[in-house]
Amino acid sequence: MNTSADIDITICEVGLRDGLQNAKNVMTTAAKKAWISQAVKAGMCAIEVCSFVPPKVIRGMEDAKEVVAHSLSEKNLEVSVLSPNFRGAENAFGSLVDKVILPVSISDSHSRANVRKTRAEMIEDFRQVCDARDQLEGEYRPLIEAGLATAFGCTIEGKISERDVLETAVACIEAGADSVILADTCGYANPKQVQRLFKLTKAEVDDALNGVHLHNTYGLGLANAFAAIEAGATRLDSSFAGLGGCPFAPGASGNIVTEDLVHMLEAQGLRTGIDIGELMHCREIIKQALPNDTLYGFLEEAGLPKGFVI
Amino acid sequence: MNTSADIDITICEVGLRDGLQNAKNVMTTAAKKAWISQAVKAGMCAIEVCSFVPPKVIRGMEDAKEVVAHSLSEKNLEVSVLSPNFRGAENAFGSLVDKVILPVSISDSHSRANVRKTRAEMIEDFRQVCDARDQLEGEYRPLIEAGLATAFGCTIEGKISERDVLETAVACIEAGADSVILADTCGYANPKQVQRLFKLTKAEVDDALNGVHLHNTYGLGLANAFAAIEAGATRLDSSFAGLGGCPFAPGASGNIVTEDLVHMLEAQGLRTGIDIGELMHCREIIKQALPNDTLYGFLEEAGLPKGFVI
Repeated sequence: MNTSADIDITICEVGLRDGLQNAKNVMTTAAKKAWISQAVKAGMCAIEVCSFVPPKVIRGMEDAKEVVAHSLSEKNLEVSVLSPNFRGAENAFGSLVDKVILPVSISDSHSRANVRKTRAEMIEDFRQVCDARDQLEGEYRPLIEAGLATAFGCTIEGKISERDVLETAVACIEAGADSVILADTCGYANPKQVQRLFKLTKAEVDDALNGVHLHNTYGLGLANAFAAIEAGATRLDSSFAGLGGCPFAPGASGNIVTEDLVHMLEAQGLRTGIDIGELMHCREIIKQALPNDTLYGFLEEAGLPKGFVI
Repeated sequence: MNTSADIDITICEVGLRDGLQNAKNVMTTAAKKAWISQAVKAGMCAIEVCSFVPPKVIRGMEDAKEVVAHSLSEKNLEVSVLSPNFRGAENAFGSLVDKVILPVSISDSHSRANVRKTRAEMIEDFRQVCDARDQLEGEYRPLIEAGLATAFGCTIEGKISERDVLETAVACIEAGADSVILADTCGYANPKQVQRLFKLTKAEVDDALNGVHLHNTYGLGLANAFAAIEAGATRLDSSFAGLGGCPFAPGASGNIVTEDLVHMLEAQGLRTGIDIGELMHCREIIKQALPNDTLYGFLEEAGLPKGFVI
């Protein structure tokens, strides 16, 4: 069992959400459960297990409630889900998830393509979700996070204004967010930019900045992860085998690879609480469940370095 | 034409040496010349064009003299070569190269596998090469660099002592080296380690530390490059399309990808002097010359980001 005292960097597995929404096949509910259980067995303490979306928008998430219920039965796991709108968030609350993440895209063009709303409209939706959460009866109080999408650049709009990112972060916190995360939806970030924007955002919202969500479009995912950690990040999203990419951001390829990230961090002496050997067993589950998808990852190819001890 | 005042980071293309020694096919001399000329046209100002080795040890380098002669006919190009021994260095001097790099492996096991000599014996060889250089008549005085191989770890020995790296760096400078370079021959380095060892070595040999030579075995090549630059490095080796890997370090895969490195640096506002569009034309030359080799690279796959200006 990992406690926060045992961990320097929290890795949140997003493959079941960000990864599966771009997979060629739909993963069975049984495979999702097996993946989640194996990841938890490996020591993973945060998983974004699904999204609450209409089936006609993203297929393969019809089993969201069942996947959440299974995840909540695992011990020491923060169970988060993505929801693009109020109804999805309400359903997520109904499933008693620990955290709901709403995408608030800095780029209006991406936001319209992704959720058919402008950034301002999404902030308003975000406020309504927070209000609904605050009106929940009983002890259940889910965390709500704003995923600041396209924070580092957009395949449609190109460069994104840092001021817009900071303003949006502050607006989300004022609307009731527990946390914000800087998301490189399109994989456009470079390490210097990650450092700068992380520090600037930290200066605005302090501990409410919860980490970074990175993609590997230009092979910079791990460089950006290192830069974020140097800038003070203690939480990173990643996807096992590098599955993923936003279907509404053309050209955006997979997330950073969980197992390669664990290797980098542990090699640097940063504790993730994750047993790499156990984690690698997730690969067999995914390979079998998604036979037509490419599984990425250097660690699988190269094996652990000689003398590597974690 | 690039002058050092126009450039923040010098990239040295090593694909023609490190890359070709692992290629499935032998590249024709004409293709090598075309690659070199195209790289220079793109603004590249340093290329390790070949190695001076016995043909029975590494095939495909029989045209070393002709390749060097062609390279020397290009303007504004530092022409360097690798040589594993005294005889190769003498031949390189005879070709009037600008710089000779000798591998001095920190790991005795790797050194024996690579050049059949211990580290101490290689340092002694290195001294003899420097002495021979000092005895050259006329104005020609090539630079001599020690490539500190396996500086970050070894596939045979595992962990490498930093003290050994520092002692070897100093010994090479005392033997007459103009410069040393820290080489992650096996791709074992992590970003923190790169930062630490670069700074430690810099403290010992100051400006004689010339940069880093990185591999991408664990997908950490660009993260390590970023870390090296943060630590003060101004010169990086890389290989177009990520060709390469040491044939005597089992499991060591390709170098970091030149075009992806250029993209990362330019995205960060660091000037490489290289025109990415022109550089990408090297791909056609290599593809045609090495039809059976995998060409790596994210930039080729993703294209330049929207709004990217260099």
